[in-house]
Amino acid sequence: MAKQKSEKSLQQNEVKRKNTNKPKSNKPNRSKKGVLNKKQTQKNNQKIQKDNKPQKNKLPKKPDANIRIAFLGGLNEVGKNMTLYECENDMILVDCGLAFPEPDMLGVDLVIPDFTYVEQNVDKIKGIFITHGHEDHIGGLAYLLQRVNIPVYGTKLTIGLIEGKLKEHKILDKADLNIIQPKDKVALGCFEVEAIHVNHSIPDALALAINSPAGLILQTGDFKIDTTPIDGDVIDLARIAKLGEKGVLCLLSDSTNAQRPGYTSSERTVGDSFARLFHKADGKRLIVATFASNIHRVQQIIDVAKSVGRKVALSGRSLENVVETASRLGYLNIPDGILINIDSVSRYPHDKLVIITTGSQGEPMSALYRMAFSEHRRVEIGTGDYVIISATPIPGNEKTVGKVVDELLKRGAEVVYEKMYEVHVSGHACQEELRLIMSLAKPKFFIPVHGEQKHLRSHAAVAESMGIAPGNIYIADNGKQVELSKRKMSVAPDVPAGKVFVDGYGVGDVGSAVIRERKRLAEDGLMIISAVIERETGMLISGPDIVSRGFVYVRDSEQLIAEAKLVTQICIDECCHEGRIEWNTIRNRVRDDVSRLLYDRTKRSPMVIPIITSV
Amino acid sequence: MAKQKSEKSLQQNEVKRKNTNKPKSNKPNRSKKGVLNKKQTQKNNQKIQKDNKPQKNKLPKKPDANIRIAFLGGLNEVGKNMTLYECENDMILVDCGLAFPEPDMLGVDLVIPDFTYVEQNVDKIKGIFITHGHEDHIGGLAYLLQRVNIPVYGTKLTIGLIEGKLKEHKILDKADLNIIQPKDKVALGCFEVEAIHVNHSIPDALALAINSPAGLILQTGDFKIDTTPIDGDVIDLARIAKLGEKGVLCLLSDSTNAQRPGYTSSERTVGDSFARLFHKADGKRLIVATFASNIHRVQQIIDVAKSVGRKVALSGRSLENVVETASRLGYLNIPDGILINIDSVSRYPHDKLVIITTGSQGEPMSALYRMAFSEHRRVEIGTGDYVIISATPIPGNEKTVGKVVDELLKRGAEVVYEKMYEVHVSGHACQEELRLIMSLAKPKFFIPVHGEQKHLRSHAAVAESMGIAPGNIYIADNGKQVELSKRKMSVAPDVPAGKVFVDGYGVGDVGSAVIRERKRLAEDGLMIISAVIERETGMLISGPDIVSRGFVYVRDSEQLIAEAKLVTQICIDECCHEGRIEWNTIRNRVRDDVSRLLYDRTKRSPMVIPIITSV
Repeated sequence: MAKQKSEKSLQQNEVKRKNTNKPKSNKPNRSKKGVLNKKQTQKNNQKIQKDNKPQKNKLPKKPDANIRIAFLGGLNEVGKNMTLYECENDMILVDCGLAFPEPDMLGVDLVIPDFTYVEQNVDKIKGIFITHGHEDHIGGLAYLLQRVNIPVYGTKLTIGLIEGKLKEHKILDKADLNIIQPKDKVALGCFEVEAIHVNHSIPDALALAINSPAGLILQTGDFKIDTTPIDGDVIDLARIAKLGEKGVLCLLSDSTNAQRPGYTSSERTVGDSFARLFHKADGKRLIVATFASNIHRVQQIIDVAKSVGRKVALSGRSLENVVETASRLGYLNIPDGILINIDSVSRYPHDKLVIITTGSQGEPMSALYRMAFSEHRRVEIGTGDYVIISATPIPGNEKTVGKVVDELLKRGAEVVYEKMYEVHVSGHACQEELRLIMSLAKPKFFIPVHGEQKHLRSHAAVAESMGIAPGNIYIADNGKQVELSKRKMSVAPDVPAGKVFVDGYGVGDVGSAVIRERKRLAEDGLMIISAVIERETGMLISGPDIVSRGFVYVRDSEQLIAEAKLVTQICIDECCHEGRIEWNTIRNRVRDDVSRLLYDRTKRSPMVIPIITSV
Repeated sequence: MAKQKSEKSLQQNEVKRKNTNKPKSNKPNRSKKGVLNKKQTQKNNQKIQKDNKPQKNKLPKKPDANIRIAFLGGLNEVGKNMTLYECENDMILVDCGLAFPEPDMLGVDLVIPDFTYVEQNVDKIKGIFITHGHEDHIGGLAYLLQRVNIPVYGTKLTIGLIEGKLKEHKILDKADLNIIQPKDKVALGCFEVEAIHVNHSIPDALALAINSPAGLILQTGDFKIDTTPIDGDVIDLARIAKLGEKGVLCLLSDSTNAQRPGYTSSERTVGDSFARLFHKADGKRLIVATFASNIHRVQQIIDVAKSVGRKVALSGRSLENVVETASRLGYLNIPDGILINIDSVSRYPHDKLVIITTGSQGEPMSALYRMAFSEHRRVEIGTGDYVIISATPIPGNEKTVGKVVDELLKRGAEVVYEKMYEVHVSGHACQEELRLIMSLAKPKFFIPVHGEQKHLRSHAAVAESMGIAPGNIYIADNGKQVELSKRKMSVAPDVPAGKVFVDGYGVGDVGSAVIRERKRLAEDGLMIISAVIERETGMLISGPDIVSRGFVYVRDSEQLIAEAKLVTQICIDECCHEGRIEWNTIRNRVRDDVSRLLYDRTKRSPMVIPIITSV
């Protein structure tokens, strides 16, 4: 099996870019055979209809059939998108993302959906479709597949990025990964799922037309309408229009930009800005920070660099990984000789260099952060640098981005950030684009997805403005379930859903109790009071000794430490002279009395932990 | 002395608003005598020149004199503004603010400037001028006065707000507080400081013209140009123009909005928005969240409430305090009978109520936060509520504000937030206003203050665009000092400056070591391993026992705990059988071996604390 995988990689490696005319296309030749490996082709050819052989929809129409949609993640949050569809005892999943921890989730590395409902229904689940390769759509998949081995369907780049993750988790070999293309239809149980090409800030993104006996659901995934995309492939509006003519029962659409009027600009406008800024930066070293997964952005940087005769170096592990995968699979066209190793940048003059880097969100330890704070092995920022931050801060990251910008400015670099030039465009549709999709799909029911409450509400208002009746719009939440039939939409019983914390190797073992303890420790630290007492007499044999961490600087607090020892001694004496020794009483009294003393003296509440041993 | 203070409060209470014509003025009658209490009047009448007796500037001009400006806070940060001026062995201070802790300053309540340089020079310091009553300009004052008792000068409202703080710190009685008015001149040593009225988001704000033998420095404080302010008092541009004619050596100006082109809107536009929205909210209960100190905003809410026949209730301690102080001092005009107690809101129908509340930044435990999360004693949010958040998130607070908005929306309230209507305007000047001040003051040298590096840089660029030579512009940093003479600006030696953390009663006792421990504890918690060993033989008498906090859920981790005990036992056995017992070696080995075990098993690094006692 491991061997088959590597064969597959080789095959994929052979797929070359064919169309290099303008508007430039980085998309691999999609009709080429051999994209699926042998085993997969054999196994799947009964269910994947390729687009070159159009067939009639063979799903039986059942006027009284129901379809249920359960929301396992992605509502009232940005991240960990996951949706479950159920019809006639068959189930399919769409996406399995992660969310980044909120500031109050101390020590948590990442957050994934609760898979309880999936595990309870594993026998019904026929497969999982991944709309695109962003973390909030694929980041939970490795954890899901560790528990239940479900066939995975996605486009070539998406599957390529998933492979990297499964390899890290050492479960690539047993995974059942299936590459699909836009226009492909996959029949799973009573479902037939059709892949539809959409534009987004990562190539190879899909909307899904989920056909069932109860009707057709269109889930857009993350999308925008880009009429001049870098890969030349405009979102397949014709197909959405066709589905609209046939009848769309329900539309689930991306709410991220539902508060913004108008249209999102084309990715190509960013390339134009780069061309202008690269000229402005003449004589200086260029450093461009962007999202690792924005392959079209990276392509444009490389293209402009080539046009002005600069070499390109990459800094940041995730960027290097994505560029490797994307160029191997044919999504990135890197001219020969332009890419140089980051370790050799010192050999090139400043005006012959562009460094593409991670850290556009100001993440500590990212490449740009390390450059700003003189912690980068190869790049020291100075007056000869021209830094472009080709991203806007994700809400919550404004401060960290600001900190990095300030540091770069202090070192004398010129910095392009925030909205100074159009060096970033969103990957998500604004209100006019959302309206356009609604006008084409003409859904009977509408459910806004992917976003916080304010995004969902705004999107619902957009739908109402398009004439969809308020009663046909449902603002859901994680754990909610709706049931749809041709005639009505109703709320079905809740399903288990929630946040599962990943911390190191632990998945779900850090819960609210542990987080509460971490908060307490983070706030005021702790004090350990240890003493050894003779079991029979209650006589103090050793101690009390005190160890404190994160509370006060002990050397400056001798008086306080002495007082805490005294209070402990009094507690022990009193408890032991009252006849029978109650060990729990001693511990509780020491904790309470010392806590009170410390609060009175410092107005802080460190965790007080008595370690009273009897021998 | 305490008695004198209460007399003063009574006197201030008697000052009534005189001018109620439009544009409305909440400003107390400034020429009325008796604003200063007796002691203060006697003490100060030699140095405070009232504006009704204009006098010639008697400061001797010395062409070779120097003035030094030392920056103790407020540069490369938003907060803890503090500037020190030194000329001919006399020193004066301007402002003494606090900063709110960054997210990585765990458990820190607030941050104040390092007062070392002030304490070193206490004999030279003649007084401290406070430009206005915001926390980033007055919040550090109580801590400063605890260490050095310096005369304080500020306008009536500013001093009123300072009194509240000093009372909390129990140092009001010994403080030397002096009320000044715009146009007043205070002679202190070789300095003569003139108060100039400016507009800002709190009434009674000042710019300061600091006259010295070396020349005149104009420090704007926080300001904007509002031609239709709520109190009717436009910034005194005429006086700034006059100073410009006489010659301004150096301008120190507010950089907060230096990145924004154009003009900041008048506070009055917000009142117009309120009038429209209050009509839109007909039939609903209105809840308006804003900054407690924005007294003109509160006035406008009250005025519109009155015009539509609604009662007003206040929720939030800081708001109640500020409203009490401001109305007592005559800065707020509350019509009789309009204010009701928050405890009685249930007695009024929804459409007869406006609740003004704190929490516009989404602060946990603020009134609005408690209302959103059903933790408020009196107000439960529902579909009958119309909430207006009359503020924009301060950078870093976007997430917390978003969280509150989402929760309010989920409960069915209508919410006006972000830029949906003009329900908030900034209190700081935009680029055109900054240009206007420069064109009037015509300074020879320019130093942008109040802001992060990006703000300072933008402000410097604005100054350059006004024709100030780049060599005459200095971007400073906390701890830097410049020396100015008629002819040149040069960098003087650094002075001590920095961040001092306040945590509970402790000022400065939480340093980087304690913060580092808190971070470690916050990330992965801790494990305590205790054991009692016989001193002579090294025999284990009790334990090893394990206590863990913030690491794992212990009941689900029995195996791991058992392994940690085993590793400890092995360490002890091996150390004790190697002949002489090295207690430190035992502790270090237990810590290292158990840490390694825990990391191998969990990929986490809790703090491991061995408590090995010998008896």
